[in-house]
Amino acid sequence: MHSSFDPSLPPPTVREEDCPFCAIAAAHPPFSAINPPHPFPSNLTEPASFVVLSTPTAIAFLDILPLSHGHLLLCTRAHRPKLTDVTNPEARELGSYIRLLSAALVRATGIADWNVVQNNGAAAAQVVPHMHYHLIPRPEIRASGRYRESFTMFGRGQREELDEDEAEQLAEELRQQIADILREEEDDRERRKKHSQKL
Amino acid sequence: MHSSFDPSLPPPTVREEDCPFCAIAAAHPPFSAINPPHPFPSNLTEPASFVVLSTPTAIAFLDILPLSHGHLLLCTRAHRPKLTDVTNPEARELGSYIRLLSAALVRATGIADWNVVQNNGAAAAQVVPHMHYHLIPRPEIRASGRYRESFTMFGRGQREELDEDEAEQLAEELRQQIADILREEEDDRERRKKHSQKL
Repeated sequence: MHSSFDPSLPPPTVREEDCPFCAIAAAHPPFSAINPPHPFPSNLTEPASFVVLSTPTAIAFLDILPLSHGHLLLCTRAHRPKLTDVTNPEARELGSYIRLLSAALVRATGIADWNVVQNNGAAAAQVVPHMHYHLIPRPEIRASGRYRESFTMFGRGQREELDEDEAEQLAEELRQQIADILREEEDDRERRKKHSQKL
Repeated sequence: MHSSFDPSLPPPTVREEDCPFCAIAAAHPPFSAINPPHPFPSNLTEPASFVVLSTPTAIAFLDILPLSHGHLLLCTRAHRPKLTDVTNPEARELGSYIRLLSAALVRATGIADWNVVQNNGAAAAQVVPHMHYHLIPRPEIRASGRYRESFTMFGRGQREELDEDEAEQLAEELRQQIADILREEEDDRERRKKHSQKL
């Protein structure tokens, strides 16, 4: 499902019951992002899935062939092949989650730069035909000297299989950071409400 | 501002008053997306800008160095360097506009596949430090035989300057498609409301 994109192959046609992202969504009912379960099971699917956010609308988890440490996917809970198949309320929620996941990813990895990528259709290198946003941390290329690798996208580059122990730890850290950010933003809203009532 | 990304250069620091996207936003007050002005001025900025959507929150326009015909940018009206600088309500609106612009782009270009890309920071190939989503149509690569070119991203590939007459026409078509889609979705909501009242 994450194999390299081969333009000579016909576009994938995947039924909902064969969709790997639908399988992850089905195995993971929504949980409170501000109070995530702990410990969290990663063995509900085969291969294991490292879920960091699960809502009635969307689900986010680590890519099993990451382009960099922290490579996340965010998709709709419902099977939507392309971004244009998404409802407007879903699109709004996704917009909000991309921001939230970005902030959590920066905190959890310590990497300040990242790409958000969303591919629609075989010609755009979409491999799993269930719409998803990639969030890909980009470590400082001058430090690592790996300029070419750091720009790998579209399945052409070096993608290594996810180390499961590392993934377990990173997913836990991400769930905690998401909860922290939501709590901070809630506190911030409360403070501003109180402040405006005083005026 | 759209020049190739050079990793040996320091990350750009652009003040709001020097930001090219702030200049486009300042020259283009919000207009009704369902009833766009016609004709529409493209000469309010230097270089010309081909705006297809302008709301209190966001603005979308053609990239002046497109990777493909129809290459669009969507950014916040306010100067937000990265996606994490965006407010949650802005993030939700952007999520909705990406869906709307995607649908309009598919109709206006006839190209069914496209990428959505959003780069944060120099290491992630962000060139203009005012957050923006790219929408990049990907013509069928088997038809064109231009496999490598069609995957160009991050300013490394062949980007040609926008032809202004072509851009004028395309922007007009995009504004019309956006209006049509919004009208269709409004009609659809009305129909469903009436239907549910009958039940």
